[in-house]
Amino acid sequence: MMEKRTRILVRYADTDQMGVVHNANYLTYFEVARTEYLKDLYTSYKAVEEAGFMFPVTGANLSFIGNLKYDDEMVIVTRMQSFKGARFTMEYEIYVGDRLVHKATTGHAITDKNMRPVNIKKVYPALYEAFMKGLGQPV
Amino acid sequence: MMEKRTRILVRYADTDQMGVVHNANYLTYFEVARTEYLKDLYTSYKAVEEAGFMFPVTGANLSFIGNLKYDDEMVIVTRMQSFKGARFTMEYEIYVGDRLVHKATTGHAITDKNMRPVNIKKVYPALYEAFMKGLGQPV
Amino acid sequence: MMEKRTRILVRYADTDQMGVVHNANYLTYFEVARTEYLKDLYTSYKAVEEAGFMFPVTGANLSFIGNLKYDDEMVIVTRMQSFKGARFTMEYEIYVGDRLVHKATTGHAITDKNMRPVNIKKVYPALYEAFMKGLGQPV
Amino acid sequence: MMEKRTRILVRYADTDQMGVVHNANYLTYFEVARTEYLKDLYTSYKAVEEAGFMFPVTGANLSFIGNLKYDDEMVIVTRMQSFKGARFTMEYEIYVGDRLVHKATTGHAITDKNMRPVNIKKVYPALYEAFMKGLGQPV
Repeated sequence: MMEKRTRILVRYADTDQMGVVHNANYLTYFEVARTEYLKDLYTSYKAVEEAGFMFPVTGANLSFIGNLKYDDEMVIVTRMQSFKGARFTMEYEIYVGDRLVHKATTGHAITDKNMRPVNIKKVYPALYEAFMKGLGQPV
Repeated sequence: MMEKRTRILVRYADTDQMGVVHNANYLTYFEVARTEYLKDLYTSYKAVEEAGFMFPVTGANLSFIGNLKYDDEMVIVTRMQSFKGARFTMEYEIYVGDRLVHKATTGHAITDKNMRPVNIKKVYPALYEAFMKGLGQPV
Repeated sequence: MMEKRTRILVRYADTDQMGVVHNANYLTYFEVARTEYLKDLYTSYKAVEEAGFMFPVTGANLSFIGNLKYDDEMVIVTRMQSFKGARFTMEYEIYVGDRLVHKATTGHAITDKNMRPVNIKKVYPALYEAFMKGLGQPV
Repeated sequence: MMEKRTRILVRYADTDQMGVVHNANYLTYFEVARTEYLKDLYTSYKAVEEAGFMFPVTGANLSFIGNLKYDDEMVIVTRMQSFKGARFTMEYEIYVGDRLVHKATTGHAITDKNMRPVNIKKVYPALYEAFMKGLGQPV
């Protein structure tokens, strides 16, 4: 199973008046992490969209274990948790040093440009093989 | 059980190049809805913070059923789902007209300014009573 | 000259750890104000885009006179400052009660979908007439 | 005169339905660039705040020359343009490859925690000397 580590530095704009990162920014961090995972696995998400496909978010599950503060350098560990048909799930852990501050999953559909689900085994086999490799499963 | 309906108009800045609202903005919409719920139930969240308390987000569970587009007027139906000790959960449904586009819950801790959990039944009884009223339960 | 007043309540997510609204959000507020101005003047910006036109931002000039805080209700006073050819400039003042907290202008191009400047007097005369009305000038 | 080059990759969340980076995000990019400039010049902005000082934005002047797209790698060239008393101005240019896409300045006050202007020559001489060095001027 492939695993990608992504470093992100907390921006000032990410904080709120509680003095920690506002909760909505975590979804943006995961997007950055997912994009880097995909680049390592196969290609850029930009290329995926240019090929006529999209991965819209269908669900998200966030567990806030600790906080992120301004100028913290987080490491996001990203894996593909599952993939079946036109759906896949990614999982993420955020660390600051040894401290686990967040765990999450995001669910995605695999669609064409009109947001209709597609079977990539048929229409985008190179991506299908990459996803199977990401899961650590034989194609 | 109390229920609050909040209207929000989708801003241009909320969209991304998929042509729909970017997923991270939903957490911001729920925050607006939660704030209005609390104002109707008892007081402003601003007053809660000035009284020395905070409701940091501890978890979130989002289900994207449909999409929101620029200039859509959404109605968010907000309820308190549970409340026990120093924790509570809110639930949300987003509608555009009759169309349900999103369901979600957010979990919250009730803490002091240093993010230590507090028992509001003891230290903030007026808020405790309001929360019980929100749940539709006897104090 | 037309003038539009837009009310916006500061969201918690808009604040940063300085305890005031983060500077980048002002551009989003102006976008909301500009959208409401246009709706009052002629039509929705959504309809403008559907008609095949766009108003990309070409410049912005922001003066921070005071601060906005969480839960402040601001009033944005919006006017068209100038309009010539394929360019126009909007001006904004933000008040909280009687207190002026911000002044700004944004410059815009009027383009087709490929971001090429267009002469609306020829290709979108109804918008041209609305803009002249906004400026308080004879068509 | 010191000059800092900062690389930022455009995030998907930064785009809007025009298919380019939404204008409000530029102010966030400049904040990242300014932070890196300051780290190279003297210390982190985090340390500045911990020492009891802040640099709130008092003005901004943005010129959109071109567009930024998803996954573009921009280079921001940052310099201190002026510094006098309790005020300073930063200037920025954004390039994608050889293409200049944006020019901007941001004005800042130098204040204590209560947003009162301070004379750093007296109260924070090490920062004063760093700023003079940034400008390329003798202390």
